Amino acid sequence: MVRPDGTVLHEERHPTLAARGPEAVTENILEIAAGLAARAENPIAVGIAVPGVIDEENGVAVWSSNVGFRDVPLRKLLTDRLGLPAALGHDVRVGGLAEARLGAGRGQRYVLFVAIGTGIAAALVVDGKTYGGAHGAAGELGHIVVRPGGTPCPCGARGCLEAVTSARSIGRRYAEISGNPEATAFDVVGRLDQDPAARQVWQEAVDALADGLLTAQALYDVDVLVLGGGLAEAGEALLEPLRGELEKRLTFHRMPRIVKAELGDTAGCKGAALLALDHLEKA
Amino acid sequence: MVRPDGTVLHEERHPTLAARGPEAVTENILEIAAGLAARAENPIAVGIAVPGVIDEENGVAVWSSNVGFRDVPLRKLLTDRLGLPAALGHDVRVGGLAEARLGAGRGQRYVLFVAIGTGIAAALVVDGKTYGGAHGAAGELGHIVVRPGGTPCPCGARGCLEAVTSARSIGRRYAEISGNPEATAFDVVGRLDQDPAARQVWQEAVDALADGLLTAQALYDVDVLVLGGGLAEAGEALLEPLRGELEKRLTFHRMPRIVKAELGDTAGCKGAALLALDHLEKA
Repeated sequence: MVRPDGTVLHEERHPTLAARGPEAVTENILEIAAGLAARAENPIAVGIAVPGVIDEENGVAVWSSNVGFRDVPLRKLLTDRLGLPAALGHDVRVGGLAEARLGAGRGQRYVLFVAIGTGIAAALVVDGKTYGGAHGAAGELGHIVVRPGGTPCPCGARGCLEAVTSARSIGRRYAEISGNPEATAFDVVGRLDQDPAARQVWQEAVDALADGLLTAQALYDVDVLVLGGGLAEAGEALLEPLRGELEKRLTFHRMPRIVKAELGDTAGCKGAALLALDHLEKA
Repeated sequence: MVRPDGTVLHEERHPTLAARGPEAVTENILEIAAGLAARAENPIAVGIAVPGVIDEENGVAVWSSNVGFRDVPLRKLLTDRLGLPAALGHDVRVGGLAEARLGAGRGQRYVLFVAIGTGIAAALVVDGKTYGGAHGAAGELGHIVVRPGGTPCPCGARGCLEAVTSARSIGRRYAEISGNPEATAFDVVGRLDQDPAARQVWQEAVDALADGLLTAQALYDVDVLVLGGGLAEAGEALLEPLRGELEKRLTFHRMPRIVKAELGDTAGCKGAALLALDHLEKA
């Protein structure tokens, strides 16, 4: 429950129940939303954000690999159940919306929010509006090829940025080198001071990320890059070498500011609320 | 001289006089524009497009390597000389604007115009408006790295798309292989049927272009790619293998249509006129 100014009044966390299939996930979402609406004093709109390919204009979750959505008309289902105007957004894009308007990108016109966790995705926000592209599939920074012929990516290509620099890929690479199959990206960051192998894995990840961000800057030309997701929790251990590597690679491009996201994992909820309010204004 | 509907009433071509320096180029532009304005029956606005980094909002040519502009307030100079409202745009972006609204992209909401000539640059046009980025430097598709560590690019980096697939780079590569120092990209296209070396150079260029367009599609997600510039004159000899190579590389991305630009080298003038009219509407 979020006020128009972004203040969070009440927060709940529930598992998605993805293992039970997309119908169960949808029913789960509708139940939780109805519960929140019933708690609210004067609810005016509901916003929801999900991963995958989203048709924001028609309010349909077109496709999601981890939840299993296939053309689910979530916005209509929400409006029918709750009797409130609803908006549907993409998880990373609404996160970017919140960071751009309420978080680390506020005051800047051109913001690229880059979420690095299990995967990598980006959201361009210009003058407080997200850019989704023709099919809601813009910003797939994790799937630009930075190492041609490199590590296979689950998407089917090779050498995608996500196959090198996601938290999962960093953990896997360190597990290979260190011989500890349980190793994670957090171990890498924690051992930079004492383990050359950790430093090597980190440097590879930072190099690939700088390559990817250079491409993003060449095409998007933003004022500021806001790094979020689990990996950004590494803070300056990530940002400082990243700034250096990006600076090295720039030729005529303008160097963007590189900052850490401020809203943590509430960005998605706040962004969904902003989207719902924007939707009200348009209607 | 262009009507609001895009009809060209009168056309003149003049050399830029770049060898005489940026002041001479500026004076030359002002003279020619004044001449055109004097010929027009009821001139209402003037639009101008130049290469390089452009600050469209303030009407300033910030930087151009081939003309030598450094912070030239072209819009103000034009308005002062002609007594007409003026707009300043970027050559490739206004070309994209014209192709999106009057040419091969008409009827489509998300258009990426890709100009391939001596260099390579792209312009994203959404709902008939160009995207310039924070510093007027967006769309630098020619300078995304597709061959890490590859051929040096004049920009200072290595393996830029432009260093492989521009008409100049294709000609240079064929000159190397064929031993004919005068060879051009046109020779490559003309000899595809009889010369395996021409086929090899062409395939390398198409491969790199498909790699670059895959990245562009991952970040921009457009409906249609409109290919212009000298190289696009190759027509289906370029478009047909390019569609195949892009299709091969797509994993979850949506395949955009790939079409040839329709307006040829009048796109820049028509786009400059559209920009001037848009500018009038805003004012």
